[in-house]
Order: sequence, then C-alpha cells, then structure tokens
Amino acid sequence: MAVYGVIMAGGIGSRFWPQSRKLYPKQLLKVFGEETLIQQSYNRLLKLSSKENILIVTTNELVPPISEQIKELSNKNFVIEPLGKNTAPCLALTAFQIAQSDPDGVMVVVPADHLIRDVGVFNKTLDTAVSFAKEQDALITIGINPTHPETGYGYIQNGDLIGKIGDQKIFKVKTFAEKPNLDTAKRFIESKDFFWNSGMFIWRASVLLKEIENHLPGIYEEFSNAFKYWKTPQFNEQIDVAYKKIKGISIDYGIMQEADNVFMIPGNFDWNDIGSWDVVAKLAGEGDKNSNIVNAKGGALIDTKNTYINSPGKLVATVGVDDLIIIDTEDVLLICKKDRSQDVKDVVDDLKIKGLEEYL
Amino acid sequence: MAVYGVIMAGGIGSRFWPQSRKLYPKQLLKVFGEETLIQQSYNRLLKLSSKENILIVTTNELVPPISEQIKELSNKNFVIEPLGKNTAPCLALTAFQIAQSDPDGVMVVVPADHLIRDVGVFNKTLDTAVSFAKEQDALITIGINPTHPETGYGYIQNGDLIGKIGDQKIFKVKTFAEKPNLDTAKRFIESKDFFWNSGMFIWRASVLLKEIENHLPGIYEEFSNAFKYWKTPQFNEQIDVAYKKIKGISIDYGIMQEADNVFMIPGNFDWNDIGSWDVVAKLAGEGDKNSNIVNAKGGALIDTKNTYINSPGKLVATVGVDDLIIIDTEDVLLICKKDRSQDVKDVVDDLKIKGLEEYL
Repeated sequence: MAVYGVIMAGGIGSRFWPQSRKLYPKQLLKVFGEETLIQQSYNRLLKLSSKENILIVTTNELVPPISEQIKELSNKNFVIEPLGKNTAPCLALTAFQIAQSDPDGVMVVVPADHLIRDVGVFNKTLDTAVSFAKEQDALITIGINPTHPETGYGYIQNGDLIGKIGDQKIFKVKTFAEKPNLDTAKRFIESKDFFWNSGMFIWRASVLLKEIENHLPGIYEEFSNAFKYWKTPQFNEQIDVAYKKIKGISIDYGIMQEADNVFMIPGNFDWNDIGSWDVVAKLAGEGDKNSNIVNAKGGALIDTKNTYINSPGKLVATVGVDDLIIIDTEDVLLICKKDRSQDVKDVVDDLKIKGLEEYL
Repeated sequence: MAVYGVIMAGGIGSRFWPQSRKLYPKQLLKVFGEETLIQQSYNRLLKLSSKENILIVTTNELVPPISEQIKELSNKNFVIEPLGKNTAPCLALTAFQIAQSDPDGVMVVVPADHLIRDVGVFNKTLDTAVSFAKEQDALITIGINPTHPETGYGYIQNGDLIGKIGDQKIFKVKTFAEKPNLDTAKRFIESKDFFWNSGMFIWRASVLLKEIENHLPGIYEEFSNAFKYWKTPQFNEQIDVAYKKIKGISIDYGIMQEADNVFMIPGNFDWNDIGSWDVVAKLAGEGDKNSNIVNAKGGALIDTKNTYINSPGKLVATVGVDDLIIIDTEDVLLICKKDRSQDVKDVVDDLKIKGLEEYL
C-alpha cells in the first residue's frame, strides 16, 4: 500500500491579511525560518511518501507560485479544484483521483499552512497512523496534546483506548467540539480527554470514499459521474459541473462527526495553525523589555508596550500605544488591536463588499 | 515710515514630524487649502507691506525650497541666520538689518507656520498695530481672544486699557504666562483678561533695538560689531562669529517680559499655531459617524473611533483601535495616541540620539 502525502493548499488565510493575499496566501509566506510554510509541509511529507505520491490540492491560479517554491513538482503532483468548497469536496476529489489507480493507497492529509517544528515526533506519530490505516478501515485524525486553554482551535474528545502501536496510543473519537469559549476550554483541559483538532487525517482512499458515499451521497454521485471522464478531454469540464452542484462542507462536519470508524492518535509534537497575527506575535518571542517586536528599517518607540511591528522598508515610530499589531506592506497598512486579530477577516469581508479586489 | 513684513521661517516643526522634516519643515506644507503655510503667510503680509519690504528670516538650506514656493522672492527678501538660536537673535538680526537703511521702519513679525483664515480681521488688527507703532515707542503683541481653555498655548494677561484706534482696543500687558495646565487655563478663560500669545509682534526697528541694548546687551554688542561689516565681504563671517557667541533665547523671555513699553491688541480672527497632529485632526473636521478622518487610497475601519489617518498611497485597515494619529510617509510610519501628539518631538529627539539623521 503506497502512502500519498496530500497537502491542502487552497486556503486564502484571510486572517493573515494583508501579507496573505488571494494570489499569495499564507502557505506561500516565510512565517518562520528560511522556508515558506508549504515548503516546510512538503519537506515533512517527504519522510513518509515518495515525491511522485505527493499531491498538492489547490486551485489553478496557485499552481504557478507553488511550483515556483517547490521546483521539483510536476503537473502530476497537483489536484486542481475549480473553486474552493471547503475540505470535504477537496478530499473527496483527491480520494477519487488516487482510487483511479490505487484504491488502497493511504492518504496522509495535512494543511499547507501549519507550523510544526518537531519533525521527528511528527513523523513517528504519522508512521503509527499509517500503520493503523493499512490494517483497519479507519478514519484517523491527529489530536494535539493541548498546552493551554486555547479558544482559537476546535477540540477532539477521546473515547476508549483501543490499542497501541509501540508507545503510541490509539483512541476511538467520542466527539468533535467547535472552538470553545475560555471557560469551556479550561474545562476541556482539566478533563484531560480533549485534544486540539489539528486538521490532519490519515485513511485509505477507498475507506474515505465509502464514508463519502454514505454520508455525502450528493458529492459522491457528482464525482462518480465526473470520474467516468477521467483522463479524457472532458474531465475538467465535468469536474467544473460537479463543483457547481455540490455543497461546500468541511470534512469534520460532513464525515468525521458522522462516521463510526473514527480514531484519534495523540500527537506530542509542537503544532500551530498560525491562525492570526497575535499568534505570529507570540511565536516571534519575548521582544524587547517592553515586549515589543520590531521588524522595520528603524524604530523609535516612546511609551509603547506589547506591540508587534512588521514594516521592513520603513522607520516606524510609536507614541503612547500598546497591544497593537502593525503590518505595513507595499499597498496596505493594517493597525489592529492584538485581541482583535481574529477580526482581520472582517476587513477582508469589508473589502469584498466594497469591490476592492486589488487588495484581496 | 515703511512697513516691513517679517516672516520667521527657521523652525523645523518637530511635533509635526514625519511630514515636517529638517529640510522640508511645517511652513512648507499644505496643511489646509491649496497654498502652503508660508505662501499663506506671505500673501497675508502683502496687504500690509510692499513686496520689496517683505523679509523671510531663515537658514541657508531653506532658501531654495522657500524660493521654489514663492517665486517672486529675491535674495534681498531673505535674512539669513547661520543657525537657529530662538526668536530674540532672529528678530534682533532682522531689526539691525532694517535699521541700516530705515531705523524707523515698522516691523510686522509673524511666524511662517500659523493658520489664519479670517484675513480681513487679521489685516484690520495689524493695521491698528502699525498705526500705534508709528506713533509710540511701543512693543506690540497680538493677543488672540481664546475660545477654549487650551493648554498648548502661552497666554498674555492684559493690564489697563490705554486707548482705542477705531473700535480696536489697546492694552498694556500685565504678564506673559507659560502654557498652563487645564485648571489654570480654565481660570484664565473665566477671568476674561487672558489672551492666547500668538507670537506676532509689531514695533519700529529702532524701538526693538533699544530694548535689545537694555535687556540683551550681549546680543546687541555682538551684532553691533558684526554690522560694522554690513555690505562687506566679511559680514557673513562676522555674523557667524556673533551667533556662536550669543545665547539662544526667545523674544518673549528676553524682551517682552522685561520691557516696560509692551502693549497688546486683541485679535478677533481665527488663529491656530497647528502645534501638533491632534490640532490638525481637530481642524480637519468632524469626520465620519465614528469621528474618523481618512486621507488614504482606501479605508476599511472596523470598530475604530476618533482616529486620524494620513496615508495617501495606501489602503489603510484598522481593527479595534481609537484615538490614534496614523501618519504614513514614503520612509516613515508614525502611530501616536492623540493625547500624546505633543510627544512626537520625543521621537525626533530619539532619532537624533540614535544618529538617524536621514529621518529628521
């Protein structure tokens, strides 16, 4: 059974605006280190999968910038969605495509834009999941051991321990929980049976397809029709038709919460979905004595605290401000209170309404 | 007796940084309307004085940009200080220069960078002052009728009413008061005998020189020596020597508070010294329904109140902030809490200490 590394790379990272743009989204940025997030994701998967079996799922317009960053990719490494319809169609399409030649291929699905620095433990955890997926008709998700009551993540509650591979435990999943409020998040942490939902999945293509058929029959039917034209000139057109008809839904809602054969393997590696600017600010370290972090040509900070500044080409001066995120790009200036950084997506929505497409 | 319009144009407007720069200070900026502040000052004085008798007092490096803005100026219209030493040396030098050919010439002294829009009343007030200066050996200052207890201005307390010219009252000056705190400013306003100190002065050159001789004998002596070389090749060098020796002191401290023949004429015109960014924000009007004023290529303001934005080339987005001044220029970004805008000069001082001359 071959292992397919699947990188979901269609997101636009709107909470990471204005650095993240529609045609240059978060996964293409160097958030930490010398490699972009998608380069890091790709390199991590190369330990689990051969180059030919890595699949980047994205839309047509992102193929050139991704190919620019990962030179060794060819057309065969891309699964092209006509448009984004959330993760269930994305992964159904990929599973159908793999199943054309290798129904028992094991898919290791990761988002393109998460930060994982502890690659050794990551690989070990994923290896266990792959072994389990080869043996069982299982949908496996990776739960991250939470370090604090984070309100920005979804949670997974474990059910019974059903086994171990080496020292790696495998649990049935009891429930998936939405992003909680702080009190709920604290209870989750205290209960010790809640894990962060990392958005990483492991399963055989055929196993996922069976669940799609059961729980998302509309998607299954449309894609079955389209794949009658696989490798014919009509295929792309048929996929376009299918995408217009199907509903957008996440794999968590559409499949993971519905299926019976859902398992969780705890991951003890550092993991961060870098969901917003305040997370970047936290990850950037402690900063100066007033907890300011300045990436600029120069800085003159007067009575300024706990502020994150990214304005590489300019001198930045601040007077009497605190808890700000200041992001200055070639055409956009963003000033956001740190505890409001989730709401940067509201700016993106506002620009859409105003028809200011050039800034998206 | 000829009238000389004297424009003090040597200031660097550091509280108006980063738009105001050492080589492009506040007086050269269009703060309101189509003309720069120095163009407005010049045009106002043309109603009182002939072109030949207008004198711009400044330093050498500002002659080209000022000449660029007021094309009809020739070298004869400039009084050049080797360096800034506050207003007493500036006006002593100018009085000495006028007195070489016209000791009884009446000087009408105005700062280059103040905003006055009610030109009719301004002219009428200054005409009265000129008439009085021609008749009396008087040092006359214009006191502005205060509209609110401003803490950013100095105040003048009037003494006895000594006469009227038309309906324009003339008072003896009782005291000059420094910028007050709010409580003191409120008491000033309630007492009804305090006026804002506009920094505008009217006197005959010979009258000022006599007071300089009495109260600032060091300056008088150095300049007397230098002016022995007036219209010789050695003059500039002698002035340089004089400026190195004399102390920097304001005309208010050095002369107006010391002399006996000091008078105030109330000015009932609108007047603003545009001392800082919050003043610009106030003058710019009421703004949108959240009191935001945006001068930018585009704006997306989420939960933002009472914020002034000047970033002509960019889209500016803000989330969850209020009472900010945001000034974005080609090489500098300034973010300042509105009630701290007086402290922008601390940024300028910080840049000086850091040796970042290119941003001054």
